[in-house]
Parts: sequence; C-alpha cells; structure tokens
Amino acid sequence: MKKLFGVGTGPGDKEYLTLKAVKAMENADVIFAPNNNGKNMALDTAKDFIEEKKIVLIDFPMGKVKKKDYKKAAELIKKEISDGKSGVFLTIGDPMIYSTFIYLMENIEELGVEVEVVPGITSFLAGAAKIKIPITVKGDRFLLVDDIVDEDVLAETDSICILKTTKNKEDVINLLEKNRFSYTYIKRCSLEGEKVLKNKEEILEDKDYISFILGRRKEND
Amino acid sequence: MKKLFGVGTGPGDKEYLTLKAVKAMENADVIFAPNNNGKNMALDTAKDFIEEKKIVLIDFPMGKVKKKDYKKAAELIKKEISDGKSGVFLTIGDPMIYSTFIYLMENIEELGVEVEVVPGITSFLAGAAKIKIPITVKGDRFLLVDDIVDEDVLAETDSICILKTTKNKEDVINLLEKNRFSYTYIKRCSLEGEKVLKNKEEILEDKDYISFILGRRKEND
Repeated sequence: MKKLFGVGTGPGDKEYLTLKAVKAMENADVIFAPNNNGKNMALDTAKDFIEEKKIVLIDFPMGKVKKKDYKKAAELIKKEISDGKSGVFLTIGDPMIYSTFIYLMENIEELGVEVEVVPGITSFLAGAAKIKIPITVKGDRFLLVDDIVDEDVLAETDSICILKTTKNKEDVINLLEKNRFSYTYIKRCSLEGEKVLKNKEEILEDKDYISFILGRRKEND
Repeated sequence: MKKLFGVGTGPGDKEYLTLKAVKAMENADVIFAPNNNGKNMALDTAKDFIEEKKIVLIDFPMGKVKKKDYKKAAELIKKEISDGKSGVFLTIGDPMIYSTFIYLMENIEELGVEVEVVPGITSFLAGAAKIKIPITVKGDRFLLVDDIVDEDVLAETDSICILKTTKNKEDVINLLEKNRFSYTYIKRCSLEGEKVLKNKEEILEDKDYISFILGRRKEND
C-alpha cells in the first residue's frame, strides 16, 4: 500500500514542527513540496530533516491553481511512491486550514493512495503565543477568516484572526476600531524579519504578504 | 532572571509535542503541572521527557478555581525557580486557547517572572486531521466556541468546533442539523479509547468529558 502523509510544517520556525511531523519525514521515501514561483516556506522549515531524501517540487502558483493541476499533482505523487513506500507532502501551517493539501488529498485518495494528515501549529497560535494575548478564555467565541468580515459577524465574536489582509487592510482595521476591538499585526511570524505592530500607520505601511491580524474585544464591553 | 515557559502539550498523544516544547522541558529545572482531582493529562503526555526533573503539581480543581488560587500558584512557582533558572508549566492543547495558563500568566508576570508561551496542537486541529475533513477552505469562516451557540451566529459560519458538549449535546446537534451542518463527534482525540462518531444516537449516549464536535456546512448550501 502506498501512503502519503500531509504534514503541516507550522508558521516557519523549524522548532514548531511536531515529533510526528519529523518522524513522518524521516520515514518517508519521497518528500513533496509546493513550488510557488520559487518560494518554498514549507521546504525551508523542514530542510534539516530531509537532507538525504528525494525531493519533488510540484508547481502550485499561488492563486492560479486549477482543478486539473491538483489531478496532475496527485498522479505525479502516485507515480513517485511505489507500493509499501511512503511520501510526505509538506504544507505550511496546518493541512486542514486554508491549505493546498485539502484539494490534493481528495484527488490522491481517488487514486487509491492512503492519506494520513499530521496537524501543524497554525500562524494564529504562534502569533498569540508571541504576543501573549489569549485567543479565548471561558465563554469566548473565536472567529478565523481569510478575508474581511462584515459588522454583523464581528458583533458575534470576542476574538478574531484575519489571515489575509493585503487587499483590505485599512477597512479591516477601521472595522475593528469601530467595534472596539484591540488589534495586533504580526508580520513574518516566527521567521527572520518577524515584526509585531500595534500602530495603525505602521500597519498600513507594511506590504508583507506573510502577515495577519489578531483582534480581541476590549474588556468591559 | 527567572523564566517560566507555558508549554502546550497538545491533545494527548506525545507525538503531537513540538520540538520547541521538548526543548523547553529538557532545559527546565522544574516542571509544573495542574493537578485536577488526580487527573493529569498534560503530565501524562510529557512524561517521557521529564523523567529526571523535579515535578511540582499545583491544585487546580476544574471549574472551581478562584482568583486567589492563581495568585497562590504564581507565588509557589516563583519560589521554586531561582534566578537564572527556568520552569515549564504544562497545559493541554494550546496555552492561549481556553487554558488555565492564561490567568496564571498574568499573575506570574506581575511577580517579575519572564514568561514565554510555546504553542501546542489544539484538539480541533488533531480532530480534523483524524477525520480528514477540512476546517477551512478559501473564503470559509471558522468559529470556535466552548459552549452552545445561537442560530444567528451559526448562520454566519461555514465551519465550527464546539469544545464542551456534555451539558447541551442534544441542543447542539439539533441546531447543527436544522442549519444543514454535517457533524462529527470526536471522543478522547489521540488518546487511548479514541472514537469518531457520526450517528446521533451514539453521540448522545456517550458521556466522556474529553470530547468535542466538529461541524461543517453541507456543500451546495
């Protein structure tokens, strides 16, 4: 039986890898990683553990991947792992949260390859640990989104993470302020160049794609 | 300088520990863990890595902890670690998600002890990996709650985790069904006796406290 592990590599610091992720990589015959226009965060994170391994890069140009690309990728992966062998597909963060691996998983299971998912530390967990501001205390609701939310939704939550902010950053911050949320912008979390910003002007000036906002309803509201 | 690491041990399987968590434990002079009426999941998870360490159990009877208990615990911890030494406080899941450590952190920082938080794999991440059902795909909203939600809130989300279901399990499931969510009940995730249930009757029969529900809006809705 062929087996593919979908391994979450976390936000970037290799110390956020789990023991299970390291074990899956060490036991794998082939390591697969998405190739996003030459950028490869997941592979960078894992590199110390896969030095002796065969590495196969799969083109997944961010924002431009089509259904047939996943099918092609699944066929390529199946071809690379023989029966009784195992492969690891590396993906940043966690494989079940806004990940390329989700679509790939469906395609590869259809080809009769067994899949096991190894969870990873998400950026919002690493970010909250960094700034030491709780995500949830008893009774709280936490909302995770990849884009802007409207006011009705925000009204129902105590805590929020907005993962992609490059397009609507000012709108997001204005909405948080209007609804009395405190907020923190975390850039390149756990990577070189990591920055924690709380000042609105500084946040708006930053253009880094690898960034997110954690927000929390101010107390006594 | 004294330093306390708040370390998330994940859902229970020791393989979900991160390399950072293992390193913090190995470098620590004292290991602290909550003692919840003799139960000690965090310590069970970590036991292979702290065999030679001094272990101090702190009484935190679940649901009955008062403000002064955290203050007392913080004072005890400060007393146990001398300057230049470090301690680790073990907590299940992630330290910033519904955790005892959050309140402890505030008290211990007030006493002048430096705190570093080491994130952990949450139960909902491990659960989604187990059942291989995505938490979020592009455009999705994910809501995390520790109790029942009302219909208005559910209407705004695509995906949900309800962490504590022992009190209102039937209400939660009825609400999910009414709003066309598929759902999975995961009991003792990553622990001995782990069970994945999708049948309503079976879910209602189960009384295990260590369980949660993952829900997802059915497609084409």
